[in-house]
Amino acid sequence: MKVLIIGGSACGAKTAARLSRVAPKAKITILERGEDISYASCGFPFFIGKEVENRSSLTSVGFGPKRDASYFDNLFFTTVLTGHEALSVDREKKKVGAKILATGKTKTFSYDKLVLVTGATPIRPNIPGLEKPLPGVFALSSLKDNFAIDEYITSQNPKKAVIIGSGLIGTEMAEALKHRALDVTMIDALPLPLMSIAGEGFGLFVKKELEKNGVRFYGGEKLTGVKSDGERVTCVVTDKREIDADFVLLSIGVTPNVALGGSAGLSVGKKGLLVNQFLQTDDPDIYAGGDCAESLDVLTGKPRWQAMGSTANRHGRVIADHIAGAYREGDILSGRRFGGVEGTAVVRVFDLCLGKTGLSLHEAKDAGYEAIDVLTSNPDILSFMPGSTQMFINLVADEATRRVLGARILGPVGRGRIDKRLDVVATAAFGALTVDDLSDVDLAYAPPFSTALDPLTHAANTLRNKIDGIMTSCSPEELKKRYDGGDSNFVILDVRNAKELEASGKLRGELVNVPLVTLKERIAKEPDLLPRKNKDIVIVCRAAVRAWSAYSILARAGYDRRRMFVLEGGMSAWGYETA
Amino acid sequence: MKVLIIGGSACGAKTAARLSRVAPKAKITILERGEDISYASCGFPFFIGKEVENRSSLTSVGFGPKRDASYFDNLFFTTVLTGHEALSVDREKKKVGAKILATGKTKTFSYDKLVLVTGATPIRPNIPGLEKPLPGVFALSSLKDNFAIDEYITSQNPKKAVIIGSGLIGTEMAEALKHRALDVTMIDALPLPLMSIAGEGFGLFVKKELEKNGVRFYGGEKLTGVKSDGERVTCVVTDKREIDADFVLLSIGVTPNVALGGSAGLSVGKKGLLVNQFLQTDDPDIYAGGDCAESLDVLTGKPRWQAMGSTANRHGRVIADHIAGAYREGDILSGRRFGGVEGTAVVRVFDLCLGKTGLSLHEAKDAGYEAIDVLTSNPDILSFMPGSTQMFINLVADEATRRVLGARILGPVGRGRIDKRLDVVATAAFGALTVDDLSDVDLAYAPPFSTALDPLTHAANTLRNKIDGIMTSCSPEELKKRYDGGDSNFVILDVRNAKELEASGKLRGELVNVPLVTLKERIAKEPDLLPRKNKDIVIVCRAAVRAWSAYSILARAGYDRRRMFVLEGGMSAWGYETA
Repeated sequence: MKVLIIGGSACGAKTAARLSRVAPKAKITILERGEDISYASCGFPFFIGKEVENRSSLTSVGFGPKRDASYFDNLFFTTVLTGHEALSVDREKKKVGAKILATGKTKTFSYDKLVLVTGATPIRPNIPGLEKPLPGVFALSSLKDNFAIDEYITSQNPKKAVIIGSGLIGTEMAEALKHRALDVTMIDALPLPLMSIAGEGFGLFVKKELEKNGVRFYGGEKLTGVKSDGERVTCVVTDKREIDADFVLLSIGVTPNVALGGSAGLSVGKKGLLVNQFLQTDDPDIYAGGDCAESLDVLTGKPRWQAMGSTANRHGRVIADHIAGAYREGDILSGRRFGGVEGTAVVRVFDLCLGKTGLSLHEAKDAGYEAIDVLTSNPDILSFMPGSTQMFINLVADEATRRVLGARILGPVGRGRIDKRLDVVATAAFGALTVDDLSDVDLAYAPPFSTALDPLTHAANTLRNKIDGIMTSCSPEELKKRYDGGDSNFVILDVRNAKELEASGKLRGELVNVPLVTLKERIAKEPDLLPRKNKDIVIVCRAAVRAWSAYSILARAGYDRRRMFVLEGGMSAWGYETA
Repeated sequence: MKVLIIGGSACGAKTAARLSRVAPKAKITILERGEDISYASCGFPFFIGKEVENRSSLTSVGFGPKRDASYFDNLFFTTVLTGHEALSVDREKKKVGAKILATGKTKTFSYDKLVLVTGATPIRPNIPGLEKPLPGVFALSSLKDNFAIDEYITSQNPKKAVIIGSGLIGTEMAEALKHRALDVTMIDALPLPLMSIAGEGFGLFVKKELEKNGVRFYGGEKLTGVKSDGERVTCVVTDKREIDADFVLLSIGVTPNVALGGSAGLSVGKKGLLVNQFLQTDDPDIYAGGDCAESLDVLTGKPRWQAMGSTANRHGRVIADHIAGAYREGDILSGRRFGGVEGTAVVRVFDLCLGKTGLSLHEAKDAGYEAIDVLTSNPDILSFMPGSTQMFINLVADEATRRVLGARILGPVGRGRIDKRLDVVATAAFGALTVDDLSDVDLAYAPPFSTALDPLTHAANTLRNKIDGIMTSCSPEELKKRYDGGDSNFVILDVRNAKELEASGKLRGELVNVPLVTLKERIAKEPDLLPRKNKDIVIVCRAAVRAWSAYSILARAGYDRRRMFVLEGGMSAWGYETA
């Protein structure tokens, strides 16, 4: 059996390695257009930022050797041909035509099974100044790009960097370039950084974190051109300003390389090649995986394109097992389906960690769910333990079935363990667990690691209260909209101590301040302290824990539950202006 | 409706707080034998170790006030009566008789619903010298104990501490007492520390970590007595030695306080009061929760006693919701069942973190599962990122259904995020996910947080390989047994570089060293390099990644898969002697 793999990055390398183990009879060949295979592209920003000092670590395994053709031959009985660009697929004859880049000659490779793992290419905006390569303007995709950027910073000593796009790579690179002592400006067409992950509420905090660390962020700006002095880039032009720049990073995303598959008549979805749960394209003898393929979304049941190293690795295993299964006696592997993706992403932004898994409220509504969400703010570990820091969870569920659909989480990078709490939600969503289940999972607790009820348990419980109609609340975004709409038909009840209002600001508008512990008595004395009918009451404290108590006290005193709103996350999650 | 709660610790306080919100008509009273309620007992070892400096933080809420009777009245409309010891329950008349400790008088309280949350009491061994209280000998259960220990260390300046029992409290206190500059010795009847969580394999590493930090550990020793000079303790006597001591901590566990419930004729299980999924005892008007009750184990379906603060808090919410539901129109809460416990526990041991959730291999077999497990060793984050450290996962599943049953995890306390990876397994086990599902969950990945395939994904994949018969392996314990049994019917194939063997030791016995990258060629030249029939081959490297490649290379060369064994976790997980 001949297995031909087009592409030697994460998915291609994984397919070969796994295949060599489960299908010893397979004759495996990898054709790779570039010079290198199986390198750690996720590590590039950390190499450029000098967190990773050892250049060879990006291309070598932990125990020493370089992941090159010889390594793949010795370990995986795989022939690796670099500098080979696949140009055409003849599905009938099961042949691939490829060009040998060094000589320009073409060569034909036959296959029994073909694996298309052709990756993705950074998007290059179609604007004046970028018609052709311009020194100082980079994307970060290949190992070559990575070393070129490092070399440029070292030898050309640029001072002012502009990063176009504030996605995962853009944000990681902002931090890396600050570590290399550049002045850094980011521009994005969206109003806030990392917005597809952060949403508006968390986006405000990400922006503040960038600014706190000296990164300028211009949101809602459109790149219109770049200028040069004839030798290298000098300036980035947007619809609002010109920004001096001697280093420009284009990080507005990548586009999947589907030309080869498409020209062979394979179906292309919204972005990548369409595959079934075994990663087979329309042609059962042709597989696709990694950045050039779409996957099934666990939560919408629809194809979703997710260009992540983790996805690529998981694809590789499924492809290899399915190929092996076709040739094995008493096969147990060919039934292994790819379980799908959940859009999980996590990123470090200086001292913050931000991540998302599953669907946001709006995505869930778009997918047809009766979506409901909540925002909670809790200490990551017991508040009296040293280093305890507030973390924020935006948990989304389906109101009808109570199924967990996803979460956004924001918190401190070190102690908060944001990333692994996302993993718990990803596991719950994958398993179709409800918010009630999530609240019931026996999570690990000891004071150095969590609170007696984990922030995730609190989030699940708060969302249950909301679904069950026990608590009515509003998100910071919802309250902001009321302000922006000129709505003054509400009173703020702030139940913090006067000192806290002074120290950390308060909401604007009509405000009554009654510290929580005095509320019961105060209400008993002044039953009409707050409007009973004609106005809403927005109840506020630091993290919404006291506000929830106040809400219950007022409800007991006869205030209308439907006209009271706990401000979710309290002032700690309020990223907008204060009075 | 009168709700009477016997006990003011975690579960009692949570029941009252929740009940005040969901059942405003309930008249709630807490009877507490001691002087304090709702204090953070989990924080005691960290207070004694001076990590937590503020004395009041153990009894106060984050925003200031003490959690006392006035606080519970103002926030939760709950009457708290401290110094009230409940002595009898008249189930027919629905009355509780209590003694007011200050006066010795008795008083009767009537109830509609009774909540027994009477907690647990530290076990005091029945040995010479401990017939009555002895200065210098402590347990750590109440707030009083906590302050008494702190005061004793400060004022009496003890030098030599002996901790009896190496469970969670004992281990946390060993670290605390080292921080207070005491000489610390631990003794345990079991051979290794924290053994119910760690098992033998990880227990060896915990012992080394304790010793590295100056804590002596004597395992397999039985406490036989303590001696005093008439004023305070001077010595601890075991069946093997006498140990000088001027501070002794008894931490051999706690026993649930079931006398009150038992005397009222309620069923007591192996340890605690028996309850249904609504936390009702035999008597539907009497609930029990927290440390005095048993819960259903998610994985065995049988009652399990789990005295944890997290469990107690979760119990409180279920009890309150069920009581409220009984009195609500259009009730939505009374159907909320307690989802059960999974035996999750986590503990910091100096720079290590150790935890367990669900069932160990042996527990799973005892529960009737066709249990199978694997031990894996992986870097917690990309190996080239600064701070990357090896972590160890022992994952257990049912071979027939492939369901995830539990895990033990050991690793570095900071970066490893052991605790939250346990949470992922707890979620998977709760949701009855299979190892295939676990391998498919879209876990969060970026270089500062994980590896492209998370260590958990690797563990799941390795266990799938084992279940699918693709890989045969042995655990360190299994290999140790072969050594101990005098079995020499195996050859070690070590595929590390010669330098590594020199630097970090090797296994004893017949050993062939062939670095992995040269194995393919070597085998081609010397087909009978290794025994083909008469002996097993145990394949070893640092972390079992190379060994798994070597296994596949040998299998391809015709070596019998059933006679080859990858040493799980490699030398990095081998806690026994090396040659």
